[in-house]
Amino acid sequence: MLPHETFPQLFIDLFTGKMGMSDQEFDFFCKHFKAFTIKKKDFYVKEGSITNSKAYVKKGCGRSFIMDKNGKERITNFLFEDWWLGDFESYYTGNPGKTYHQAIEDMDVLEISKTDFLKMEDEIPKLKMWYELKIKKHSFAIINQLYDVKTTTCEERYLELIKKHPQIFQRVPLQYIASYIDMEPQSLSRMRKRLQESA
Amino acid sequence: MLPHETFPQLFIDLFTGKMGMSDQEFDFFCKHFKAFTIKKKDFYVKEGSITNSKAYVKKGCGRSFIMDKNGKERITNFLFEDWWLGDFESYYTGNPGKTYHQAIEDMDVLEISKTDFLKMEDEIPKLKMWYELKIKKHSFAIINQLYDVKTTTCEERYLELIKKHPQIFQRVPLQYIASYIDMEPQSLSRMRKRLQESA
Repeated sequence: MLPHETFPQLFIDLFTGKMGMSDQEFDFFCKHFKAFTIKKKDFYVKEGSITNSKAYVKKGCGRSFIMDKNGKERITNFLFEDWWLGDFESYYTGNPGKTYHQAIEDMDVLEISKTDFLKMEDEIPKLKMWYELKIKKHSFAIINQLYDVKTTTCEERYLELIKKHPQIFQRVPLQYIASYIDMEPQSLSRMRKRLQESA
Repeated sequence: MLPHETFPQLFIDLFTGKMGMSDQEFDFFCKHFKAFTIKKKDFYVKEGSITNSKAYVKKGCGRSFIMDKNGKERITNFLFEDWWLGDFESYYTGNPGKTYHQAIEDMDVLEISKTDFLKMEDEIPKLKMWYELKIKKHSFAIINQLYDVKTTTCEERYLELIKKHPQIFQRVPLQYIASYIDMEPQSLSRMRKRLQESA
């Protein structure tokens, strides 16, 4: 079993605080994790691979992207501390996934296999209830991301990102941010210059 | 209680066939529905309203859309027979919804209140399990719709729609299809003309 100090405070708070696991349940749960580092530029999942585990991001950040038919990467999300890695659809269907999860910085993660997680959900009903709620919240996030793409301009999405998640700009290269808000990197640079000049 | 013939075969097959409700469970379940017609152009939900019920589409079709900040409608889905109406996020969070669900043709629906549906889920565990699975499938559909918007052109989305759902073109005005695939109606007409000429 991993030593207790391997588990960060956010992780402990999530499971023993918000979710309300007892110390005994939490100890038992933690036994099923292993810790490792995904080196910068390495992948946790790739298109075509089947997700049979999930990994909690303890430190570091990454990006999730899909590839269009011309081989161009389209970023769908950034993956920071307290997020989980793994292809959502592949995890639940067992089919090959469509996404790539790649480290932008070295990422320290805590991984649990799908088999163990399902066993844990059976043994700790709170965990199952929590994940049902989490799936719904994840769906709402995706729905709102789709609504954003359909109703806002790239500039509006950029300004929203600066307002809501300014820390992203310290950790993520600008070309990735351009891809996330559906712009070409050159257009984003021009737009940033224009916005700075008019500020 | 509504007479048995009110419930269409697809509805009966879903609950007694695929889901495996007993006749007794199904009768009990059906007692909680009411039937009515949403007239063409009328709404089932609007932005700002709270979804406290869900309605099964027995006959007719509609559209779901969101409004951008300039008051322009952006269609996110078409609602045909065997679909359910209601704002997904509002139903689960109890917060005001962001979507409009409007009838394109007169729609005959079978409605159940959220209170009754939750009660049914408690009393018929299969129903709860089925809906948990349905929520996941709904999430996958939305994820894939987001991926489509991020990786395909309007023309590709149009050709995919013709291939997969040709019946839509018989029932839905072209300007709605344009909005769904994120085009202006005039551009869609020009594209259709070009594709017909080159066919």
